[in-house]
Amino acid sequence: MVNQLIELSMHQTVAAIDIGGTNTKIGIVDIDGKILAKDTVLTTDFPDPKDLVTAVSEKVSRLLNSGLGTNNSELKGIGIGAPNGNYFSGTIEFAPNLKWKGIIPLAGYFEDALKVKAVLTNDANAAAFGEMYFGGAKGVKDFIFITLGTGLGSGIVANGQMVYGHDGFAGELGHIIVMQHGRQCGCGRKGCLEQYCSATGIVKTYFEIIRSSDPEAFNSIDRDIVNAKYIYEKALGGDENAFYAFNYTGEMLGLALANSVAYTSPEAIFLFGGLAQAGELLFNPTILSFEKNLLNIYRDKIKILPSSLPENEAPILGAASLIWNELSLNP
Amino acid sequence: MVNQLIELSMHQTVAAIDIGGTNTKIGIVDIDGKILAKDTVLTTDFPDPKDLVTAVSEKVSRLLNSGLGTNNSELKGIGIGAPNGNYFSGTIEFAPNLKWKGIIPLAGYFEDALKVKAVLTNDANAAAFGEMYFGGAKGVKDFIFITLGTGLGSGIVANGQMVYGHDGFAGELGHIIVMQHGRQCGCGRKGCLEQYCSATGIVKTYFEIIRSSDPEAFNSIDRDIVNAKYIYEKALGGDENAFYAFNYTGEMLGLALANSVAYTSPEAIFLFGGLAQAGELLFNPTILSFEKNLLNIYRDKIKILPSSLPENEAPILGAASLIWNELSLNP
Repeated sequence: MVNQLIELSMHQTVAAIDIGGTNTKIGIVDIDGKILAKDTVLTTDFPDPKDLVTAVSEKVSRLLNSGLGTNNSELKGIGIGAPNGNYFSGTIEFAPNLKWKGIIPLAGYFEDALKVKAVLTNDANAAAFGEMYFGGAKGVKDFIFITLGTGLGSGIVANGQMVYGHDGFAGELGHIIVMQHGRQCGCGRKGCLEQYCSATGIVKTYFEIIRSSDPEAFNSIDRDIVNAKYIYEKALGGDENAFYAFNYTGEMLGLALANSVAYTSPEAIFLFGGLAQAGELLFNPTILSFEKNLLNIYRDKIKILPSSLPENEAPILGAASLIWNELSLNP
Repeated sequence: MVNQLIELSMHQTVAAIDIGGTNTKIGIVDIDGKILAKDTVLTTDFPDPKDLVTAVSEKVSRLLNSGLGTNNSELKGIGIGAPNGNYFSGTIEFAPNLKWKGIIPLAGYFEDALKVKAVLTNDANAAAFGEMYFGGAKGVKDFIFITLGTGLGSGIVANGQMVYGHDGFAGELGHIIVMQHGRQCGCGRKGCLEQYCSATGIVKTYFEIIRSSDPEAFNSIDRDIVNAKYIYEKALGGDENAFYAFNYTGEMLGLALANSVAYTSPEAIFLFGGLAQAGELLFNPTILSFEKNLLNIYRDKIKILPSSLPENEAPILGAASLIWNELSLNP
């Protein structure tokens, strides 16, 4: 605690907030990416987003004033990562995974509550900032960051800047159509990348493989217990169907990433999230397919790497680096 | 001539050079995009690129000194558009359509010859600059520029900046793979977009349609006379096969552009080149497929527009705006 006090009295801090469908995480983070204090609220406890802002702001004030940094600590700003977050407007717009409907001006609410600058972007963009500030993308000016969770999220950095697009919604690689008339996606269309390359996607692939290779086994399997982790453990245990499910996922991902290179020609692509933690099982087929499908001028020079952000700290580090980046540009 | 002299004495100028497989075009252009003088040499006359640089530089000096702008004209810089041009290094690298092999430091040669700054990029990027400075993309900070010629070239502008990528080769949308195991591409891979959406691609589509619908007609057709213009005229004349060839091209292009939006979320997409001049025949099916395949958050807000650059002046205006842009950033 004494050390933390000393740290904080030396550094200025930001509040990092990660809005999830279930939990909202809060962190107080210094400019070196040190998380000085953490807390959590249940997002679902707050049918009105203003009430969440009030509760979170109280927690931020309490974290700053109770024990941690009573002296020279100064809250410089607030960074927020949120599903369907729009950087330009500071709003969450029609997020399917949140109960709040319509357009929520969350950054504005936080600025009103805490009287400092608040910046918001979608969670994958925030995590990409985290990789750039505190992870493996330090000094890398052109990279793509991919989150392989329930869905597939992405953040694209070109020439050292996050690509937001004209409306704040750039970088939705989970929804590029990779298979015409392919698997039904939650977005209403068919064949989106995230229906193949995500924790959800690999389960679908695994079921398809079993159903076509052994219909009886398919009927007897307890489908409720099958998730990406289950398939991972099966593959490690020698289950060929599970192994092939990873191969297929990697093939699809490698092709999509090879196509992505033709847009922004990144120096590296970072994979983050549960599925990326499968290590070689995912990376080997992905890299194989990637190199095979690359245009010759790009071959053998783009790295596909696991994110170096700790899985559980990434959302907080991401939101923190988002606001630190903003403060460096517009102090 | 008097008017031109007055113009030139009022403005500073750049030399714009467009390196093509057959012709190299030269223009003297002011900051308003006015082409004050033009000339051409045959690229193929110069097996050694240094000799081309000498010949072109002499022509540039002669244009500036003979009649046009003898008084206050000052050459501020040189902009070069070239196939496989690399902005970062100022080199042409392994261009399949040029006789020069390997890596040619063309911008450096021009700087040595004319003693002003020279900047080089690939021809599609240069044309995208032309659209931004002198065409329909004035004031548009996020757009994609597509050239539909023999192949498909592209330039991507995000946040007001050309996306070059870490190696200078970003924006090769002609080589995204849109059909696994699809048509053979000159790049050595299969299913590249430009095999479907280009003057070459529509001819292949047209032949495929005739072959499957009427094999006898396919055998009797004089294949040497069929090009994109032929198909265009046939379609205007009521030929259903030709009409369907445009429909299919538009469907493929619309899907690819819808996927492109998920990367950089542009405000507009500009189509340039011979095929784009087919007007509604191409634009109608392209826009239909584009809107159908867009993720909902992008729908009804992105314009697909014909380039407003004159076809024959675009390469020169592009190369000119490339160097004007550079001079504005680094005077």
